[in-house]
Amino acid sequence: VVRYELHYWPGIQGRGEFVRLALEDGGADYVDVARLPEKRGGGERALMRFLVDRRVATPGFAPPLLKAGRRIVAQTANILLFLGPRLRLAPKVEGERLYVHQLQLTVADLVEEVHATHHPIAGSLYYEDQKPEAKRKAAIFRAERMPKFIGYFEHALDRNPRRGGWLCGARVSYADLSLFQVVEGLRYAFPRAMARLEAKHAKVVELRNRVAARPNVAAYLASERRIPFNQQGIFRHYPELDE
Amino acid sequence: VVRYELHYWPGIQGRGEFVRLALEDGGADYVDVARLPEKRGGGERALMRFLVDRRVATPGFAPPLLKAGRRIVAQTANILLFLGPRLRLAPKVEGERLYVHQLQLTVADLVEEVHATHHPIAGSLYYEDQKPEAKRKAAIFRAERMPKFIGYFEHALDRNPRRGGWLCGARVSYADLSLFQVVEGLRYAFPRAMARLEAKHAKVVELRNRVAARPNVAAYLASERRIPFNQQGIFRHYPELDE
Repeated sequence: VVRYELHYWPGIQGRGEFVRLALEDGGADYVDVARLPEKRGGGERALMRFLVDRRVATPGFAPPLLKAGRRIVAQTANILLFLGPRLRLAPKVEGERLYVHQLQLTVADLVEEVHATHHPIAGSLYYEDQKPEAKRKAAIFRAERMPKFIGYFEHALDRNPRRGGWLCGARVSYADLSLFQVVEGLRYAFPRAMARLEAKHAKVVELRNRVAARPNVAAYLASERRIPFNQQGIFRHYPELDE
Repeated sequence: VVRYELHYWPGIQGRGEFVRLALEDGGADYVDVARLPEKRGGGERALMRFLVDRRVATPGFAPPLLKAGRRIVAQTANILLFLGPRLRLAPKVEGERLYVHQLQLTVADLVEEVHATHHPIAGSLYYEDQKPEAKRKAAIFRAERMPKFIGYFEHALDRNPRRGGWLCGARVSYADLSLFQVVEGLRYAFPRAMARLEAKHAKVVELRNRVAARPNVAAYLASERRIPFNQQGIFRHYPELDE
């Protein structure tokens, strides 16, 4: 029996990618349901039906959702809070577990700001309908926010008294996998701004490399299960937003 | 000895208010540190020094921060995850505890969108420097997002198989306190749009009233500890954004 069902948009990495990375690194038995053929329950329409299924006592607001047995968990960071101990991707001690979750919530804040660089007015409008606003927002994001977030994670890596190169304690956690994804995404979306930042944040780059070298992650990234970055996801490359 | 120190901007409700409500309802022994006189450790400069204290092994990205003994916890939803069981504001069963956290993270998403209605381009710019963008964003927020979020919470209340009027199970949780705060904030910021929505979402309004009637909450709201809504916080009333 499959232990986990991931329900997320089938054509993008998006927020679901943070869950996919944890499932893959943890060697979990899972199905990425919406990516199945429609006759096997896949597709966006089935995803939407699952989201609004009125029999569910714990409804979610938006994908991703994770189904584990009869339990359905929503909100990316909350799914990782649930999966962390089960996939050995969270510390055992409560204080460290909270800190890893705190880091994940900061990743979530960054992801929201990245999305807003190309959709500053509304997610329901096309990028083409909010280009002047996007350009204005992206310039401030690159100048102020991106350095602040990446500097924060560099500082966090620097503060970890265990010198293994992970964000918290001596073992990898889901927050490390998520920071890898942030680096990959920012490299794709803002290659010029990110190159400048990487020159000053060696520990973040080292962490990115350390995660990429993990056997399960490397196998996943080389597989067809890894959806390439594209212009429908959260991290998008519009050259005019990276000048 | 004081058990909890809250470190948050002293002049606004902001994100810190979700923590204050939990501490107040739970009858916690706490100090709202930044609101003390400067000679006793209060003020914004002391808050900033606390945030960037390089001796802290678990640094936070932004206020609020909660200090409990030697532990420092950041990120609003994470602070509530920590406080919930200690203040009897979270369910005991893991599945319910995750669901309450999921609801809190959805509140956080809503709060971020509310802030973006008056700061769509950058938090570092004045509202006056992004008014056209704010007007455009707020119109879509009122028409699409506000109904979607409030409708979601109404649905969540409706789906709770325990009929006590709380979001999860038969007891109050920090998510209920947070939804109260959301209703109060939306009433202040978007009185016209919110009045229309309340007519169609009776359970959300009932929950707001149920929370307001809790003795510790009522005493808090009547005290000087409750900072009034103002034009520096997350929920701001600009009539031109509520037309």
